[in-house]
Amino acid sequence: MKLLIIGAAGMVGRRLAETILRDGTLGGARVDTLTAFDVVKAGLSTTDRVTEIAGDISDRATVERLVADRPDVIFHLAAIVSGEAEADFDKGYAINLDGTRYLFEAIRAQGGDYHPRVVYTSSIAVFGAPFEDKITDTFITAPMTSYGAQKMIGELLLNDYSRKGFFDGVGIRLPTIVVRPGKPNKAASGFFSGIIREPLAGLDAVLPVDDSVRHWVASPDAAVGFLLHAATMDTAPLGARRCLTMPGLCVSITDMIEALRAVAGDAAVAHIKREPDQTIRTIVAGWPQDFAPERALAAGFVADTDFQSIIRSHLRDTADATG
Amino acid sequence: MKLLIIGAAGMVGRRLAETILRDGTLGGARVDTLTAFDVVKAGLSTTDRVTEIAGDISDRATVERLVADRPDVIFHLAAIVSGEAEADFDKGYAINLDGTRYLFEAIRAQGGDYHPRVVYTSSIAVFGAPFEDKITDTFITAPMTSYGAQKMIGELLLNDYSRKGFFDGVGIRLPTIVVRPGKPNKAASGFFSGIIREPLAGLDAVLPVDDSVRHWVASPDAAVGFLLHAATMDTAPLGARRCLTMPGLCVSITDMIEALRAVAGDAAVAHIKREPDQTIRTIVAGWPQDFAPERALAAGFVADTDFQSIIRSHLRDTADATG
Ligand SMILES: NC(=O)c1ccc[n+]([C@@H]2O[C@H](COP(=O)([O-])OP(=O)(O)OC[C@H]3O[C@@H](n4cnc5c(N)ncnc54)[C@H](O)[C@@H]3O)[C@@H](O)[C@H]2O)c1
Ligand SMILES: NC(=O)c1ccc[n+]([C@@H]2O[C@H](COP(=O)([O-])OP(=O)(O)OC[C@H]3O[C@@H](n4cnc5c(N)ncnc54)[C@H](O)[C@@H]3O)[C@@H](O)[C@H]2O)c1
Repeated sequence: MKLLIIGAAGMVGRRLAETILRDGTLGGARVDTLTAFDVVKAGLSTTDRVTEIAGDISDRATVERLVADRPDVIFHLAAIVSGEAEADFDKGYAINLDGTRYLFEAIRAQGGDYHPRVVYTSSIAVFGAPFEDKITDTFITAPMTSYGAQKMIGELLLNDYSRKGFFDGVGIRLPTIVVRPGKPNKAASGFFSGIIREPLAGLDAVLPVDDSVRHWVASPDAAVGFLLHAATMDTAPLGARRCLTMPGLCVSITDMIEALRAVAGDAAVAHIKREPDQTIRTIVAGWPQDFAPERALAAGFVADTDFQSIIRSHLRDTADATG
Repeated sequence: MKLLIIGAAGMVGRRLAETILRDGTLGGARVDTLTAFDVVKAGLSTTDRVTEIAGDISDRATVERLVADRPDVIFHLAAIVSGEAEADFDKGYAINLDGTRYLFEAIRAQGGDYHPRVVYTSSIAVFGAPFEDKITDTFITAPMTSYGAQKMIGELLLNDYSRKGFFDGVGIRLPTIVVRPGKPNKAASGFFSGIIREPLAGLDAVLPVDDSVRHWVASPDAAVGFLLHAATMDTAPLGARRCLTMPGLCVSITDMIEALRAVAGDAAVAHIKREPDQTIRTIVAGWPQDFAPERALAAGFVADTDFQSIIRSHLRDTADATG
């Protein structure tokens, strides 16, 4: 089978590509070719069966060329994140909305017998305050950022194109991915990873919110698991509602810190510096904290077991990467 | 003040225009000019203070010209309806989605101090089965038609543009408007008006669904009332969720028939011919039936009092029109 990953140089996309290339199969079928698309070439660890392409998803002709190859499964992970979409309104709509629509349109334009599986990464940012206590699968999606609105529009398009039979779509609303590897980034949610990643590397990390704050998180491994399952699952039971909140862990800052202590000791925890930041507190107060993702669980998506395991798998990744 | 009505030749738009021109004011302020835009000139009963323009909202330049005049209030009612959007996928997206986005973008492009009230007509078609018993304001919007998806995308854009301060938007999800005047149309919902309108005119009407079917309806007068209120209300209490399900009446076919009997007698009711149609039954089974529109009620929107009054006001309209 032929696969296409859009956003393959990103944190999740690269991990997905490496996993698929290592397995060599997807849902039991042999992977013959994988096209890895992003604004830069992904630089994957193997070039076997891989075509890396650099380009812009907000350019319609580029997207049409990508789809002309008729991949059997398309993973669409390309997006600019919340902070950037909020700062640059036009860019957010061009990439997150128009880029997604060009993709869906290019698939439809192929017509006839072409009916690929499309896996779309949405986000829990499609939800906005005020929330119910545990957000259920029938709770209103009322985004409070342009990014969330763009992701939600993508969901509506995915549902409609799937309903019309143009492709077979699954949308997965990812929790915040923790521990995000690499350098700290400017995302308002960055500290959720930072307070684990930096102390484990012997560095200080700033905690801008109260210890009581709870958040919905999943590990990078869980995210890859969601994507692989979404690519291979039976979509019939989803009916017309093809976008699902992924199962995560609802953890408080206290839970995270205690897990860090259990794994890496008091010395690691001492690297967390409490520096309350009213702006970040206000942003975070508008984020959903807990979910009851019944539909995703029924459809076979599997959450992380506990936060200590998330920390341990991050430590293994870091060890692998450094030698 | 300057007003713009887009979709002014339509059933609701024309009624809105005539009402505003008769009143001469909106929310206490004098109406200086009204631009009535539609694919055809609306042919309003007065030309005083009115500019009628024919054009296509899916043409970006046309929309930019309309907005260049900087109207204080813009009513956006132009749309192709459910059946047509389902039959012609491209046309539905071009008019209902792109047209709406061109409008919002044209307003944003004016920039600076321009911050009009935008009233957008959405629909209860943003909801899809399975439903809760009475649909609340926090129930998921999961459209089951392209029209519903397009209306919902418009809602998300309206919320986001309003949140960013580009304009001051209010979206109103209209119930099915009954009694729709004029000739029977091909909408699947057409019979809800047909079984009242045709018997009152001494003509037979087909009833394709069971008498137990319930539906959420409002009169043309109520719809105009919603639009006028949306144009003048305080939007601050709406917060980030600017789209509201309008209060309607939940009536069963039995309720409608008994109201017709009370107003026009058994002879009228005898004109209703039961011809069950499986296709229409299936479509209608996917429609919402009952709502608890708390937010709209709290915001001052007012529903019809009862179905007999709806019939009587249709009779008055017909009498006015014919003589
Ligand atoms: N990481 C999270 O916590 C999280 C949470 C919810 C949803 N998501 C979503 O999951 C997806 C993957 O997340 P991630 O953490 O890997 O994000 P990432 O930012 O690491 O990766 C996104 C990739 O998209 C690429 N991209 C951006 N604009 C592009 C364009 N115009 N053309 C082609 N490629 C473009 C970027 O170069 C980047 O490599 C994204 O869609 C993201 O919005 C992520
Ligand atoms: N009538 C209802 O039961 C109902 C229910 C829910 C929502 N709505 C919505 O309320 C609004 C008004 O409803 P209505 O019953 O008056 O509809 P209508 O069909 O009578 O009027 C819509 C008008 O939009 C115009 N229009 C269509 N495409 C256009 C284009 N490309 N450029 C410019 N104008 C265009 C049409 O010519 C028409 O005059 C519509 O947006 C409709 O979707 C109506």
